[in-house]
Amino acid sequence: MKSWLPIPKGSPFSLANLPFGIISTAKHSTHRPAIAIGDHALDMSVFAGQGGFSKLADFPKDKIAVFSEPTLNSFANLGRPVHRAVRNYLRDVLREDTPYPEVLKSNQDLQKAALTPLSQVQTHVPLAIGDYTDFFAGRNHAFNVGTLFRGAANALQPNYYHVPVAYHGRASSVIVSGVPLRRPWGQVLPAPTAKEPNFQPSARLDIELELGMFICQGNKLGEPIPVDEAEQHIFGYVLMNDWSARDIQQWEYVPLGPFNAKNLGTSISPWVVLADALEAFTGQGLVNEVELQPYLREKKKDNVIKINLEVELSTASGKKVTLSRTSSNNLLWSWPQMIAHHTIAGCNLRTGDLLGSGTISGPEPGTYGSILEQTQGGKNPIQLGDGEERKFLADGDTITITGWAGEGEDAIGFGQVSSKILEALPRK
Amino acid sequence: MKSWLPIPKGSPFSLANLPFGIISTAKHSTHRPAIAIGDHALDMSVFAGQGGFSKLADFPKDKIAVFSEPTLNSFANLGRPVHRAVRNYLRDVLREDTPYPEVLKSNQDLQKAALTPLSQVQTHVPLAIGDYTDFFAGRNHAFNVGTLFRGAANALQPNYYHVPVAYHGRASSVIVSGVPLRRPWGQVLPAPTAKEPNFQPSARLDIELELGMFICQGNKLGEPIPVDEAEQHIFGYVLMNDWSARDIQQWEYVPLGPFNAKNLGTSISPWVVLADALEAFTGQGLVNEVELQPYLREKKKDNVIKINLEVELSTASGKKVTLSRTSSNNLLWSWPQMIAHHTIAGCNLRTGDLLGSGTISGPEPGTYGSILEQTQGGKNPIQLGDGEERKFLADGDTITITGWAGEGEDAIGFGQVSSKILEALPRK
Repeated sequence: MKSWLPIPKGSPFSLANLPFGIISTAKHSTHRPAIAIGDHALDMSVFAGQGGFSKLADFPKDKIAVFSEPTLNSFANLGRPVHRAVRNYLRDVLREDTPYPEVLKSNQDLQKAALTPLSQVQTHVPLAIGDYTDFFAGRNHAFNVGTLFRGAANALQPNYYHVPVAYHGRASSVIVSGVPLRRPWGQVLPAPTAKEPNFQPSARLDIELELGMFICQGNKLGEPIPVDEAEQHIFGYVLMNDWSARDIQQWEYVPLGPFNAKNLGTSISPWVVLADALEAFTGQGLVNEVELQPYLREKKKDNVIKINLEVELSTASGKKVTLSRTSSNNLLWSWPQMIAHHTIAGCNLRTGDLLGSGTISGPEPGTYGSILEQTQGGKNPIQLGDGEERKFLADGDTITITGWAGEGEDAIGFGQVSSKILEALPRK
Repeated sequence: MKSWLPIPKGSPFSLANLPFGIISTAKHSTHRPAIAIGDHALDMSVFAGQGGFSKLADFPKDKIAVFSEPTLNSFANLGRPVHRAVRNYLRDVLREDTPYPEVLKSNQDLQKAALTPLSQVQTHVPLAIGDYTDFFAGRNHAFNVGTLFRGAANALQPNYYHVPVAYHGRASSVIVSGVPLRRPWGQVLPAPTAKEPNFQPSARLDIELELGMFICQGNKLGEPIPVDEAEQHIFGYVLMNDWSARDIQQWEYVPLGPFNAKNLGTSISPWVVLADALEAFTGQGLVNEVELQPYLREKKKDNVIKINLEVELSTASGKKVTLSRTSSNNLLWSWPQMIAHHTIAGCNLRTGDLLGSGTISGPEPGTYGSILEQTQGGKNPIQLGDGEERKFLADGDTITITGWAGEGEDAIGFGQVSSKILEALPRK
């Protein structure tokens, strides 16, 4: 399928994709919805405002204002059938043999008003996030990190194969790609056997390679979502880097879990790839040989989305190194299983809630989703050349995560999430 | 100080208090701000709309719409000096010798329009909560529970006196007093040595007696709030019951902390007692003999608010028992210390964020903030009479928490947070 709009070869934003985001421009600072197509953003507020959706029969007319809001929440809240209809319609409008050429293909005025090169667009956190929950579904990561701390025999906790383990994260500090991250201060033990902490900038700042998923429609408090209905609650997916200060985490995390080690920031990619766009890319995840509790048993067998993932480090000295190449099929739990577990005790999800997969690692070096795993807790530094090495992140380092499903012209890309580490603030 | 409006003896809502909440009524279903005074609510949207604030010189006139919004966020965001001016002014309007009798005392029309008996008012969650964080500052509780699980010698973790330990909670399931709580289903080990969980309704449903604090103004990501400036970020306080399913918690909580055991619901009292109203009730908290990290050292010594707290259980069979009488001075950390710690690694707080103190327990039976402590994990049931007993909560039980500072006519009361346990949903 081809578009009349030139789409550069290798663009993550093919006609098969059409992800949604929130943009502003220098000329027009209001935050508003857009889709990414090739190297352009198509401004949904202008498109909708100038009758762009006039040929879409099954869109609820009284809801057209969702395309002028500063977040995607109201659009998301319309539900999967509406997302599907809108995406199919936009694909029809944009394809070479469009049945509606008058809408955009031959409408130079609307093209001029609504299409902006991505290079001239500022992107923002796409949804107002109510709550952010981070799962721990990357079994290889859980195993690798458990091995580091407790040895291979006790690496996974007894609950691991039964419970989609998760913790509540911090929604306020979710930031969009491009926003830099300040190295945090915190309490850190100077040695594993020390009894008193130091107060210092984190010396073990790390990444966590994850996928994020946004909820489109929630549930009422006390009314769990059945696992086989959970897909209807998924809006779409983004790439995620859940920054982690390992030294702060090590001292603070007993008995209630990580806190300041994580709430310093979580970076996400700006374009939400809709759930429908990824339906062709599902398969089996890691095998779980445990008999699952009934609320976690899915009818669907190919329940895990397969996304290729790459992590690149670029340094202030100009070096670029690929830290990891892996795939999201290294997850033990599917997104519907995570949703079913999240709500089984009655917790209500809301439109805009963000769920993280947990760190995605393959089984061997070069496929790990954290530097902690790659350097074995700092013991085997990553060699960058010219004697430069990394045990953990240095000031000025930029981490860029890229993700895509499929290959060739119909590949569905996420674009990237990229963020630079700024030096810690001076001590006051 | 007396009011021209009759205030029943023993009312929590004295003229010295004037807490803020969000109300609706059968006649007027729009959610809107109000203050509680005696056994009335004074509707702030009607009061402001009919010129009630005309004599308050230092209120920003372009902000008067904050009193017509469905949450208190915009009012809270105006900051402490405005809250103080508004509260002082409302006290002047309501006192016997008011300098502004024409505003309300002699204005029968406005009284009729704006004053409603509390018994005819529906209350709602008072602020839109961005993130909810629960601390663990109740040292006696931490010690009591640690003793149950690990023995007295290892009861407190090594970080306890250094770090104001906290975890991220669930904002979506914060509910207001009066909303019932459904007993949750979850994964539970049938015995401590079992290897496979059961899926069942929680058999160890418990309370946690806490105080909650709302943030009025936040900070930017990467810019911590200094401990001696933190008071300016506090809007006010509520009573909190952080429901906990102990059996679900025991199985799920390693290694990332509690999740479904807590996100099933957190109940709060509806009236936010403003920080200014409690300034006279501060004193020393528990002594911490550790040398604190600089970011936790406060200039102010009397840094802990002293609130008397009571927990009552009433059963479906009509019994009423006081489970606990204690005080919030059983906290190791002050609210400014919690704020300073929350932001030290760069985390941003936002208007409407809710911070919980952690469970407040005294040192001996009858002063505990959880049933877990009171029954020693279910080993010593609470005797209710006629052979009825409780190891944990039963269906039909109602838990009511009451709190107040000071005594007599100038006492500052919180009112109560009360919620009933409903039986678990039938298994589908």
